Amino acid sequence: MIKIYFIVCISFLTFSNIHAENGYRLWLRFDKIDDAELLAQYRNTISAVQINTTSPTLSVAGKELINDLQSLLDKKIPVQKNITENCIVAGTPASSSIISEIFSTTRYDLKNDGFIIVSKKINDKNIIVIGATNDIGVLYGVFAFLRLLQTHQAITNLSIISIPKIKNRILDHWDNINRTVERGYAGISIWNWHTLPDYIDKRYIDYARANASIGINGSVLTNVNAISVVLTRDYLLKVKALAYVFRPYGIKVYLTAKFNAPIEIGGLQTADPLDTSVINWWKKKCNEIYELIPDFGGFLIKANSEGQPGPQGYGRTHADGANMLADALTPHGGIVMWRAFVYDVRTQKADENFEEGNNNALNNSIAAEDRYKQAYDEFKPLDGLFRKNVLLQVKNGPIDFQPREPFSSLFGAMPYTPLMLELQLTQEYLGQGTHLVYEAPLFKEVLNADTYSHGKNSTVAKIIDGSIDKHSLTGIAGVANIGNDINWTGHPFGQANWYAFGRLAWDNNLTATQIADEWIQQTFSNNTTVVSTIEKMMMASREAVVNYMTPLGLHHIMGTGNHYGPAPWVDNAGRPDWNPVYYHRADDYGIGFNRTSSGSNALAQYLPQAKQQWNDSNNCDEKYLLWFHHVSWQHKMKDGKILWDELCDKYQQGVDTVRWMKQQWASLKYFIDDERYNSVRMFLNIQQKEALWWKNACIEYFQTFSKMPIPPGVEKPDKTLEYYEQLNFPYSPGIGGNN
Amino acid sequence: MIKIYFIVCISFLTFSNIHAENGYRLWLRFDKIDDAELLAQYRNTISAVQINTTSPTLSVAGKELINDLQSLLDKKIPVQKNITENCIVAGTPASSSIISEIFSTTRYDLKNDGFIIVSKKINDKNIIVIGATNDIGVLYGVFAFLRLLQTHQAITNLSIISIPKIKNRILDHWDNINRTVERGYAGISIWNWHTLPDYIDKRYIDYARANASIGINGSVLTNVNAISVVLTRDYLLKVKALAYVFRPYGIKVYLTAKFNAPIEIGGLQTADPLDTSVINWWKKKCNEIYELIPDFGGFLIKANSEGQPGPQGYGRTHADGANMLADALTPHGGIVMWRAFVYDVRTQKADENFEEGNNNALNNSIAAEDRYKQAYDEFKPLDGLFRKNVLLQVKNGPIDFQPREPFSSLFGAMPYTPLMLELQLTQEYLGQGTHLVYEAPLFKEVLNADTYSHGKNSTVAKIIDGSIDKHSLTGIAGVANIGNDINWTGHPFGQANWYAFGRLAWDNNLTATQIADEWIQQTFSNNTTVVSTIEKMMMASREAVVNYMTPLGLHHIMGTGNHYGPAPWVDNAGRPDWNPVYYHRADDYGIGFNRTSSGSNALAQYLPQAKQQWNDSNNCDEKYLLWFHHVSWQHKMKDGKILWDELCDKYQQGVDTVRWMKQQWASLKYFIDDERYNSVRMFLNIQQKEALWWKNACIEYFQTFSKMPIPPGVEKPDKTLEYYEQLNFPYSPGIGGNN
Repeated sequence: MIKIYFIVCISFLTFSNIHAENGYRLWLRFDKIDDAELLAQYRNTISAVQINTTSPTLSVAGKELINDLQSLLDKKIPVQKNITENCIVAGTPASSSIISEIFSTTRYDLKNDGFIIVSKKINDKNIIVIGATNDIGVLYGVFAFLRLLQTHQAITNLSIISIPKIKNRILDHWDNINRTVERGYAGISIWNWHTLPDYIDKRYIDYARANASIGINGSVLTNVNAISVVLTRDYLLKVKALAYVFRPYGIKVYLTAKFNAPIEIGGLQTADPLDTSVINWWKKKCNEIYELIPDFGGFLIKANSEGQPGPQGYGRTHADGANMLADALTPHGGIVMWRAFVYDVRTQKADENFEEGNNNALNNSIAAEDRYKQAYDEFKPLDGLFRKNVLLQVKNGPIDFQPREPFSSLFGAMPYTPLMLELQLTQEYLGQGTHLVYEAPLFKEVLNADTYSHGKNSTVAKIIDGSIDKHSLTGIAGVANIGNDINWTGHPFGQANWYAFGRLAWDNNLTATQIADEWIQQTFSNNTTVVSTIEKMMMASREAVVNYMTPLGLHHIMGTGNHYGPAPWVDNAGRPDWNPVYYHRADDYGIGFNRTSSGSNALAQYLPQAKQQWNDSNNCDEKYLLWFHHVSWQHKMKDGKILWDELCDKYQQGVDTVRWMKQQWASLKYFIDDERYNSVRMFLNIQQKEALWWKNACIEYFQTFSKMPIPPGVEKPDKTLEYYEQLNFPYSPGIGGNN
Repeated sequence: MIKIYFIVCISFLTFSNIHAENGYRLWLRFDKIDDAELLAQYRNTISAVQINTTSPTLSVAGKELINDLQSLLDKKIPVQKNITENCIVAGTPASSSIISEIFSTTRYDLKNDGFIIVSKKINDKNIIVIGATNDIGVLYGVFAFLRLLQTHQAITNLSIISIPKIKNRILDHWDNINRTVERGYAGISIWNWHTLPDYIDKRYIDYARANASIGINGSVLTNVNAISVVLTRDYLLKVKALAYVFRPYGIKVYLTAKFNAPIEIGGLQTADPLDTSVINWWKKKCNEIYELIPDFGGFLIKANSEGQPGPQGYGRTHADGANMLADALTPHGGIVMWRAFVYDVRTQKADENFEEGNNNALNNSIAAEDRYKQAYDEFKPLDGLFRKNVLLQVKNGPIDFQPREPFSSLFGAMPYTPLMLELQLTQEYLGQGTHLVYEAPLFKEVLNADTYSHGKNSTVAKIIDGSIDKHSLTGIAGVANIGNDINWTGHPFGQANWYAFGRLAWDNNLTATQIADEWIQQTFSNNTTVVSTIEKMMMASREAVVNYMTPLGLHHIMGTGNHYGPAPWVDNAGRPDWNPVYYHRADDYGIGFNRTSSGSNALAQYLPQAKQQWNDSNNCDEKYLLWFHHVSWQHKMKDGKILWDELCDKYQQGVDTVRWMKQQWASLKYFIDDERYNSVRMFLNIQQKEALWWKNACIEYFQTFSKMPIPPGVEKPDKTLEYYEQLNFPYSPGIGGNN
């Protein structure tokens, strides 16, 4: 009988958490402070709120502040007209005479969207001021203040001044009109185009709120592999409805513009950017858009890449294309984000060599058009030719969101053009929907990378925040990992990548650990065991995925098309540079892509000091070794091992880290609600299974070249290479197209 | 200042409901009883629970009973070994000595899955007994008991005996492996095949629980437009994982079997059902399935229909095909559900006439092969030829889930074959995801329809429950309206159709009103204003959709392919009988499909007494007039109006009812939580807009034939027919394919 009773008790626990922790709330959890002493302190320090909700944004800010405080403190928070002891005053100089007074006595240089949270004594009353020069700054300040409570910080003697480093902090949705999401692993698109504009899904509001809470201020609604129909009036009315929902939260909507839209929906014969009818069509289209959406953000364009049309189809340059659109947007204050991810141009020779399976000849001919080099080769010559409202949007690395890439050689190479950094939150090459991979270390790695464009410490961060090249137009984009799964991101830890992107877009000085900690505190618990355990897991997770997928500089050896699972053997994809063999170049001698002057010479695209860290195979940062060098299987590594053994060890390390993560998580069983505990537990099981799959498949495949035994300490694969090679996954997610 | 405070208060209300009423809980809401007097009564009447959780199902039943009672009564309910005053005893004779004793003194004829809920005095203690002969019956009894409390019923002097009328109560999911759902309007499939079997989404459990709560005991996981891959071992392991989750809830899994699977995945040259290698392949496949899933339910097959392969491809009959599969399943106790929805066979002549646009000739030639008649023509001759474990699954009407159809002529025509009724919960032709249409009146209409197969009162209900033809194998299927939207069905009222299906599958004597009332009470509130207002809306809603889409017997005049919106003008679809013009046959003389002896003579498929109600155009039940008669625009209706005027009036009535529904809903603003209130409010706006669209487009189109003015009292269309004709919706939902 005791036994049964026990079961029942556990079950009751489960039930009680069902709705509380399904993940829908993200990090915006404002449950009552569970530390009694701290709760008492907070209650003493916060007595009331004064805010004049004179605009939709201030109304949202007031609602957020009061509701969440009431919830956190479990007490009624009165809204009042006069200031009293321990009152919070929130507003702008325009909305609040007190803030007007404060801002007139102290000069805060808040620029766009910044805010202050300061403790003040006004009229003998101790108050907390959440102030900003514009309304959205107040909302950001409110969320920042709430975060202090969520993370159990002191709220006395506050003197916080916070200013975003980057002006345009944008999520890119690769969402199709049919609601499939390219590289989406969390259900389908949250945009229900069919029921818009008449039905406003509550998610739209919660999406805007979540983004505002971390400072994101733009949303590109549609896939870069674009479809013209979204620019027709019926769809613009739908976009308008979303813009209306987002506006109070400070979020602008953007659309992807298909370059040949003038033909597809405009009835023109051409999309030539220098053609007057085309120029006029886009002007008229922009006028139409802005009439509906006065604060429309602008266009994101993928042109002349992977089948998307572009100006080169008319013998024009990317600058011609971008500038034509920029001119149409200029009267309305819109911007163009033109993607640098292009790799269409190839020599006939390379293709022929590839088709003939002539590997040596390919290695030679590829020197001229290594995909690595193409963005730089295309865009560097155009530096200075773009209009002032054009941003060039550059992926963090030269290839495509690999577990680890060197920074793109464009950073630091185009001083006259504002470069926007494109990061990928959705884990296309990082375990997709089922692996726990915290991406902030990856983001930080690229932000901290030194381009040396203005001497030492010319980091990518300083390139994109405009401080080095004195650009006032700045931007950063994250390819969203959001879908209609109840918890938004499928894997509960996917939320951390969305969160980290927003936080780093605001302040790239934050460390990955800091961000992890505050996310954990808001999302799970302030319990120190929970925070330190999950922090360690998160901080180890990115190196784990590098190790079990692509250690030592390997890259793009995933399954072709779906990018799911290992497939280093694939050599028959539609283009040479879609094939894993193109990237790893394993042969009897060794492995790796020679990008030195004796190879493709991609390294020449970097400034000498940057190049230096990678140029010599004996001195190269080993994390990037196979990105730049074709080295012997016997190559001596810094730890004294030969490359083959080191490679095998790294794969094993990746697996071991996942096992360790599983153990760490298991230790939290009684600290985490059942629903999320079990969800992560099951995902970690999948991650372990797939890490082993990666290790086994890659080691067995590369062993066919190295012909060396698997070193001691590395588990022997339990299946044959043939087994791994015959696996295929035609229904793996994320390959949604627009049709 | 007062104003601001007011806004804040309202906002706070919104916030407090955010998680409580997102609809995820369905009708399984067990919030504390809000009637203080009743709560006190319940608390007095329920003191403890006694249940021996000796099986997974009893464990689930115990958990449900205790958790939900604790939640409803807001008090701790002890689980105890001995019976005490006001204790609830739940179990079977095998699990409980008390129930064993009760069942030995009173003979309850519970058959499969039935249960009793009775008040008893045992050992001088007043107790409530929830008893059944098998474990799942106990779970059903628990949910029935909880429903009494949810709907504020008395729980003294209970003497409930409840036995399901139909043995197999099944949901058919038209879900594809890629997670699109054919005719799905609530997101994508809840089955995440990619992460199965390792990841068990909490939804799988909640799905099983919701179904068990209304007695549904089977789930066909995959689309009738089938794909062979689901029968491969990798996918069977995924199916096994779902079966494991569903098992404690009494739910068997079924799969759709693609008839040519032996070719597609078996490597055979043929799928001929009489070929030994084919027979053996299916036997082996069934052995494999049952080794993994010992309680696998069986197969659902769509063969030789709309492109699906079948036995006729090999010169065999449907019986040959069904029996071959049935034989493979027999050793394991599985069943075959063979669909009667076939309309592949056509005469050359009809196709030619159609293609030539020769309407008169078509009207003549169609007499031989009216799609209406095909299921009957195909299957009636096969009566008596099917194995004992084959059910013939027949859609409620002869065409395809129209707002109103006459009952299928197969009902009553195949006494030697158990016929299974297929209903559609997803609203393919009933406003899809955005219209409030309560389908129970439609379900009841067909269940109550009299086939006269054994004289008067030989209802469809009695055909399918086996009582007339003495079949012990019985079944009913509902095509699911479930997707991964947070609230499962997209429209909050879609849940009512899922609920009503389960309740009617259990007991077809329940009225649509009864079911509406208990659903409203569980889903929204016991407040009498709420219950009576919503009940009226629901009960009016089905006739509304008939009126604003297809009044007086019109049918299948929706958009081709997507079935979205009105398109009576379409005459160029791939097959004659995919065209609206095929069905309405409007011309200068009149409108309607002559199915009397002077036309297609489909009416001859009914028994004389059934036929009688429809055979004479002057006497025909006017709800079905245009199903059976081509009548003049001047045809005199029973109310004295001419047909044209009546048709226009009906369209107007449909619109008016929707307007009235909107008003009714608006009157509930302060009775319903904000989230669901607003959701339904927005959907009703869409429904009104689309009802007007239907009315305007249809009236303007039919007016081109009638050439008569729109009668007084009918609002004039505000757009031209050309406007309506040029609308197109390439991205409307629900057309997901398997590729």
